[in-house]
Amino acid sequence: MLQTLSIRTRSRNESRDVTAEVEHVVRASGVTSGICYLYVPHTTAGVAINEHADPDVMADVEQALRGLVPHNAGYQHAEGNADAHIKAVMVGASQSVPIENGRLALGTWQGIFFCEFDGPRERKLRVKIMAG
Amino acid sequence: MLQTLSIRTRSRNESRDVTAEVEHVVRASGVTSGICYLYVPHTTAGVAINEHADPDVMADVEQALRGLVPHNAGYQHAEGNADAHIKAVMVGASQSVPIENGRLALGTWQGIFFCEFDGPRERKLRVKIMAG
Amino acid sequence: MLQTLSIRTRSRNESRDVTAEVEHVVRASGVTSGICYLYVPHTTAGVAINEHADPDVMADVEQALRGLVPHNAGYQHAEGNADAHIKAVMVGASQSVPIENGRLALGTWQGIFFCEFDGPRERKLRVKIMAG
Repeated sequence: MLQTLSIRTRSRNESRDVTAEVEHVVRASGVTSGICYLYVPHTTAGVAINEHADPDVMADVEQALRGLVPHNAGYQHAEGNADAHIKAVMVGASQSVPIENGRLALGTWQGIFFCEFDGPRERKLRVKIMAG
Repeated sequence: MLQTLSIRTRSRNESRDVTAEVEHVVRASGVTSGICYLYVPHTTAGVAINEHADPDVMADVEQALRGLVPHNAGYQHAEGNADAHIKAVMVGASQSVPIENGRLALGTWQGIFFCEFDGPRERKLRVKIMAG
Repeated sequence: MLQTLSIRTRSRNESRDVTAEVEHVVRASGVTSGICYLYVPHTTAGVAINEHADPDVMADVEQALRGLVPHNAGYQHAEGNADAHIKAVMVGASQSVPIENGRLALGTWQGIFFCEFDGPRERKLRVKIMAG
């Protein structure tokens, strides 16, 4: 039961809120207790869990990462997207969210974000549910 | 079996060692082999695994993060805690630790830290044990 | 079924590609669907998933982290490796990769890296497979 969400990103850096799509996968699974695994099969994107009430929050995260890891800084990797690889390592490719009462056990303000660092592109987020 | 540890943090930035409390949940579960999931349901805190023998180590981690992500730096988010959200993304909201012989398979020097970035607050750490 | 990969690192900072060794553990388990957990039981190393086609990518990641977290910067921890602890927190000690059709569901360009930040040393990577 490894599912795939398709995501078309629209800019180079983008924090796409995918909470509703992931919650849909959880509900469709019928699993009431377990773990929802989120996995990004790309090397220039990541997955983060943070506030989705105010979109300024993830805009600040993007801006801070751009400041820490500039787009061009004499990188060895010749494709012009070394910064995106570095950010992907810093944010991470996998997250695990508990499932409780058939729903993601997210905190009040939490949402799940697909973090694009080298868009726009066609992307995938793998979602796996394990009961337990 | 999704449990909740309650944590009252005491300062704005704090690395609270919760290893003993998590180990207690593992022992109480009776699970001898499996995974212990740690999940932070907040957007201005994270969970990290690092050295707990010398408290200076996590003090250095806090200090380094404060240097990389200043408290005030022209953020868009208007609540004055954008830095805490950014640090939470960098540290991460979830970790998974193997369980072996009924105990967390932590390394010799490792402890589990609830990382507060916008305290003091009443916080929760969700802990889930899966056998396998 | 918690297994251990032994890794002898050769320099202070090193991104060791362990994809083949982890894939071997997955195949040997006979599990066709599930999760592969990667866990670093050290406090000055981490585990990352990123591009392994071009070794320049992880060299850039190492270099960027060295720039963000200098080796010597007035740290409190007296052992001279505070930077390694900080990088370990930023990269993370655990990752989860789905297993599909008996293989790691890695993306086309992805590999698994043991990230050494305070080598050379004898290191371990714990690998656990759960079916589901």
